[in-house]
Amino acid sequence: MDLKSKAVAARSASIALGAASAQIKNAALRAVGSALEAKKNDIFAANQLDLAAAKKDAVADPLVKRLKFDEDKLREVLDGIASLVSLPDPVGKTLSARELDKNLDLYQVSSPIGVIGVIFESRPDALVQISTLCLKSGNSVMLKGGSEALETNRILSGIIAETTAKAGLPAGWVQLIETRADVRDMLELDAEIDLLIPRGSNEFVQYIMGNTNIPVLGHADGICHAYIHDDADYEQAVRVVVDSKTQYVAVCNALETLLVHRETARTFLPLVRTALEKKGVLLKGCEQTRQIIDIDLADEEDWSTEYLDLILSIRVVDGFDEAVGHINRYGSHHTDTILASTRNTAERFMNLVDSANVLWNCSTRFADGYRYGLGAEVGIGTGKSHARGPVGMEGLLIYKWKLFGDGQIVADYTGPDGKNFSHTAIPID
Amino acid sequence: MDLKSKAVAARSASIALGAASAQIKNAALRAVGSALEAKKNDIFAANQLDLAAAKKDAVADPLVKRLKFDEDKLREVLDGIASLVSLPDPVGKTLSARELDKNLDLYQVSSPIGVIGVIFESRPDALVQISTLCLKSGNSVMLKGGSEALETNRILSGIIAETTAKAGLPAGWVQLIETRADVRDMLELDAEIDLLIPRGSNEFVQYIMGNTNIPVLGHADGICHAYIHDDADYEQAVRVVVDSKTQYVAVCNALETLLVHRETARTFLPLVRTALEKKGVLLKGCEQTRQIIDIDLADEEDWSTEYLDLILSIRVVDGFDEAVGHINRYGSHHTDTILASTRNTAERFMNLVDSANVLWNCSTRFADGYRYGLGAEVGIGTGKSHARGPVGMEGLLIYKWKLFGDGQIVADYTGPDGKNFSHTAIPID
Repeated sequence: MDLKSKAVAARSASIALGAASAQIKNAALRAVGSALEAKKNDIFAANQLDLAAAKKDAVADPLVKRLKFDEDKLREVLDGIASLVSLPDPVGKTLSARELDKNLDLYQVSSPIGVIGVIFESRPDALVQISTLCLKSGNSVMLKGGSEALETNRILSGIIAETTAKAGLPAGWVQLIETRADVRDMLELDAEIDLLIPRGSNEFVQYIMGNTNIPVLGHADGICHAYIHDDADYEQAVRVVVDSKTQYVAVCNALETLLVHRETARTFLPLVRTALEKKGVLLKGCEQTRQIIDIDLADEEDWSTEYLDLILSIRVVDGFDEAVGHINRYGSHHTDTILASTRNTAERFMNLVDSANVLWNCSTRFADGYRYGLGAEVGIGTGKSHARGPVGMEGLLIYKWKLFGDGQIVADYTGPDGKNFSHTAIPID
Repeated sequence: MDLKSKAVAARSASIALGAASAQIKNAALRAVGSALEAKKNDIFAANQLDLAAAKKDAVADPLVKRLKFDEDKLREVLDGIASLVSLPDPVGKTLSARELDKNLDLYQVSSPIGVIGVIFESRPDALVQISTLCLKSGNSVMLKGGSEALETNRILSGIIAETTAKAGLPAGWVQLIETRADVRDMLELDAEIDLLIPRGSNEFVQYIMGNTNIPVLGHADGICHAYIHDDADYEQAVRVVVDSKTQYVAVCNALETLLVHRETARTFLPLVRTALEKKGVLLKGCEQTRQIIDIDLADEEDWSTEYLDLILSIRVVDGFDEAVGHINRYGSHHTDTILASTRNTAERFMNLVDSANVLWNCSTRFADGYRYGLGAEVGIGTGKSHARGPVGMEGLLIYKWKLFGDGQIVADYTGPDGKNFSHTAIPID
């Protein structure tokens, strides 16, 4: 099937899937779990083919590790499915309700978005996670995984498609896309695809965002800041900065720039330098920083750089306002933390910093769907519409307006003698 | 100031405006109301210039009528401002709250989107309505009104900018754009503008949607359907169809296609024909329709046409499924109504029709922010993310994640001896 036909099939299936009952969706999820368990040896065998090819191609070790789909990964995936089954149906929830007039009742009701295109990294377990999230939320999905995982992705998506069709879901709701060329072509399918979620490198996400009219949920850069206010607890600040920078450097919520209040710089900078250098972090600083600690010079470009590495840029600022100004100018609206002693200062920071996640006295690394308790994470958004920050299943939902009447017409509500609307709230259970 | 400088100024002002208190915003709104009242003669004089130019250019009467800004329009605008003042602050509302661990509390809090670009029709009162909605919701706004209203728009936006700056709001939050070329250039400013709301002709909205990476809230076509099920009350159905088609033909929620169940066609079609022809509606039908009533032939193109005129296309369908299939294929996901006697059938229709507004036994013309009781309408969206259907002030809002800690680091929550997250809900007032 060509890409366009796959998209049309997904669109068509999305109608019945969106109206499927919780019972049918949960039965289908359980059937997927059982089938993955029953066919695990076939899955592991397919995964061995991917792993062998990766080794032959001298793929880097961390990538090979993520590519592996073994008994442990299967357990995780099955736990994820079981937890999805236990969640209430997110579709059909009444968000607001209002009587417009007698027997003219308006309900705003959650509904699936329709067809989601997801481009994800080389973890085959992500395929199961994403497609089951889409199933539970009533969305069709077009999946493009890493090409290194193709054999594993094929067998997994095949099992999911087959099992769910047997369980009564419409065929075609889950579609595997196999080539980069198809991803490019997918960007044109704005009549069939309602939302794109790209989870790859910055360059790739930026390419997607710049080349499609389909709404995109994602983030390009993660240029995160910590600002040390003049009343910060130094010991606590050092711990938080070290964790934000080094706990896992290759991720979007890792710290990239440290801003230090002028009044604290002389005491704080030597302390944080010692702690960071112990962890192997290379420091680059502004001129004022270098008058206190002898490190490399950071230039204008450093403030806009996401190192994703053991490198940190440091700038001394005149105070709170300059710190906020720097973050809003150079940051990527992802995650920023303030170290300060009063909640009042923290709240001012949180209100003035235009980022998805604004934190007080804790590590930037907390900004994550799992740590936030959102359940499975669909993606992270730094845009300002639909969903922002770590996005769980609610990012796959929108709503409909349902209006129940008994013959009302608008002409009766217009003109000088027109009826009035009551607009009274209907209590929601 | 050139366009880019205006956008940068709007972006910069959006930070302080987004953090402004309800008190300051409401005082600014009240000051705008007083200033409009105090300077009304200057405003009416500027409006006379626009009206004179329009008459000279032989602008069509309905457009001239919408262009007028007189004592009545001023009253409406002042009422709108007073009602905005009386609303609670939509910014800073806690949407969800969760303890991640002791003294590590997460709040999801409503926040402004940032900078909104609005392109609106030739009603100068819309300028006041839109900019005051943006003010209340903490958003900067770039406004492009109809060129026919330029003099009135200039004086109105000037009064709003001046008055709100005096009231303590950041200068630059409201920007008037005057040329079509600026609109085109605005589409490139995705670093400064967060959301575009175009409210013009279909072609224009489609052009905007196809030529920008900025998220767009809007609708192109409004191809709305009524489906007459085999158990519909004929008299009620005729009334609803006539109202949907003729109550106001030039709007997006007017009826364009009537679908009639095969079993009801023979009785219903002659009834509805008489009622519609009495209102001057030209009817076009499929072959089956024409076997019952002698009207023009509708071809494939008619099913995708938004007439915005006294024309209606009619199709006889085999039943419910074909009706739903037709609507999902040819419709524009705007507004569709079913005439049927049981709520069960209506709910199936509502779940299967993929439209923003799905109605039972009432006119499509009800699908409107004012009639829904949403307050002032920002726009109507037929997209499937962010906001859908008639969009009130909540469409100008997004949220932030605020995390309050006391020194927590992620390293303490990882590994076999890592602490666990509690993830317990915090009650919201």
